[in-house]
Amino acid sequence: MIIAVDGMGGDDAPSIVIEGMAKARTLYPDVKYLLFGPEDTLKPLLDQQSALNAQVTLVHTDKVITSDDKPSQALRRGREASMGMAIQSVKAGDAHVAISAGNTGALMALAKFILRTEPGIDRPALISPMPTLRGESVMLDLGANVECTAENLVQFSIMGAAYARVVLGLEKPTVGLLNVGVEDLKGRDAVRQAADTLRAHQSDWPFDYQGFVEGDGIGAGDVDVVVTDGFTGNIALKTAEGTAKLMAKLLERAFKSSTFSKIGYGFARSGMMSLKNHLDPNNHNGGVFLGLNGLVVKSHGGASAHGFSAALAVAIDMARSDLVRLIKDDLDRLEHSQDKNDAMTNNESASI
Amino acid sequence: MIIAVDGMGGDDAPSIVIEGMAKARTLYPDVKYLLFGPEDTLKPLLDQQSALNAQVTLVHTDKVITSDDKPSQALRRGREASMGMAIQSVKAGDAHVAISAGNTGALMALAKFILRTEPGIDRPALISPMPTLRGESVMLDLGANVECTAENLVQFSIMGAAYARVVLGLEKPTVGLLNVGVEDLKGRDAVRQAADTLRAHQSDWPFDYQGFVEGDGIGAGDVDVVVTDGFTGNIALKTAEGTAKLMAKLLERAFKSSTFSKIGYGFARSGMMSLKNHLDPNNHNGGVFLGLNGLVVKSHGGASAHGFSAALAVAIDMARSDLVRLIKDDLDRLEHSQDKNDAMTNNESASI
Repeated sequence: MIIAVDGMGGDDAPSIVIEGMAKARTLYPDVKYLLFGPEDTLKPLLDQQSALNAQVTLVHTDKVITSDDKPSQALRRGREASMGMAIQSVKAGDAHVAISAGNTGALMALAKFILRTEPGIDRPALISPMPTLRGESVMLDLGANVECTAENLVQFSIMGAAYARVVLGLEKPTVGLLNVGVEDLKGRDAVRQAADTLRAHQSDWPFDYQGFVEGDGIGAGDVDVVVTDGFTGNIALKTAEGTAKLMAKLLERAFKSSTFSKIGYGFARSGMMSLKNHLDPNNHNGGVFLGLNGLVVKSHGGASAHGFSAALAVAIDMARSDLVRLIKDDLDRLEHSQDKNDAMTNNESASI
Repeated sequence: MIIAVDGMGGDDAPSIVIEGMAKARTLYPDVKYLLFGPEDTLKPLLDQQSALNAQVTLVHTDKVITSDDKPSQALRRGREASMGMAIQSVKAGDAHVAISAGNTGALMALAKFILRTEPGIDRPALISPMPTLRGESVMLDLGANVECTAENLVQFSIMGAAYARVVLGLEKPTVGLLNVGVEDLKGRDAVRQAADTLRAHQSDWPFDYQGFVEGDGIGAGDVDVVVTDGFTGNIALKTAEGTAKLMAKLLERAFKSSTFSKIGYGFARSGMMSLKNHLDPNNHNGGVFLGLNGLVVKSHGGASAHGFSAALAVAIDMARSDLVRLIKDDLDRLEHSQDKNDAMTNNESASI
């Protein structure tokens, strides 16, 4: 198992990258790494991690994608940068998966350009785990496509369910389409048409399609896989993050509002820490671009070393289970079942 | 000032309706009410509130819209129901504003059908206050229109800003368009085109257009008025509610996780109560259908008497400031300024 790592992506790169790799090594001692970035910056950090160092091949490049680079700029000159070289090593078969905590737009543009979409997939999608009352769900698309057709949403359902099987370890995940109500007539055309397709082939899917889910069903954990277009998904994700931040700040104010409250916080500390832990994005790190001919994992830009190691764990899970092939098999299965259905429909018409 | 009240709308109607009116009466002693519903149910409740009773004219109807009624059913037989009659009294000029805690879809359908949209407004929108770190913002559309054009979004900005001036008491509210990023090139066509129009006429608006705002800007209170289509707005609103619920449950678990935590909660109680207070939907009650030839306020279906009185306060604020006329004036002003601009543009073309 070989992972291609962008050594220079993320707010606190390269230090959190190397430290995250060192943390991951204790859990996955056999994994090897291709690390891309400037040798003079990365070598000294690696030298401090002798156990990790033995697993790493350092590939030098001076070029780096910054957080200000536009996707168009990334496409022009990013293939020689640490981010682009990591993706190219997946394309070349030198690594099983690439990972970066860098600029999301640049990473998406480079990944799409270098790896192209899988056969049967029109658009890649960005997926990520979300904390819920039941534990964890996943949601996609989180911003790769601002407009989506019904076909896109059906493909996202297949990809999202495959991801949930691998990363959440579920045998038959539940899937729901994000909508403004749960009744059949609600919502936009694309969402309703996708629902028709998902329901029509219900028995063929390797997941359990449960119908529409509303915004408050995300946090409630109504389904394992929440499927939506990239505009809505991005806004839902950030609204959830913003609300969590709002509540945390109000909570802080509440605890500081009086001496009694401060004493209270002292007592409640361990419980509060476990709450913080459950919501900490570092524990739900590892967004992925699904639907490409190769695996690319996006870590939060502000991830800690712990967060980066969590994203590495997601990358390893996906590579081990060969997520790209899993999605392809599910698509093939659907195509066959649709051919079969079409054949049956033709027979029926003939008998009229 | 006369308010038309649907006596039978809401999960705990009619008791919370009458109690909410009694609460509002202490703050607004001069306001009179037309109360619609079955006399045998409402009369005994009113008789218990003698001070309120003197301000109320009871209008009998046996018919009631239930929470299961579809909008189409509401249109067929809702005009004789308490909800429809309340709206019709606004249309007839017998009341300044109508209020109901009943079925949202039915209320919207009846309000649109009976009152029709204001001149210059193509679609009505549902708006509501939201708690933020800075206090309170408002967001629209929350579900009246699943698809919106750029023109709709511009009209929503005008309507939302007028509402914020009246209900939040702001002289020149800040307005932002909800989008997946703050850069000019981000997002859907309708959102980008609306941004162009809002920016082009920046000096003409009675509000301060601030550009795009992301999902996490809602809770942060980045702008006073968040403008979006009804699909995205509904999902953002419910995602925020769901996340708040998730955090409250996790917090409860955290506080119950050990004896220490339980003691902590005892000490922190008053601070926690003020947090709960800030987030309680009853304190942000009073969604409104904007853009109609008359005012209709929607209270939460699950509102308490306190919540219903908060919605009544919103209704009174809007009626006092004649929100319908305010929106009309803003639209007229824009039209004149556009005519002026068009005239200038024509002159320029002529001189080429």
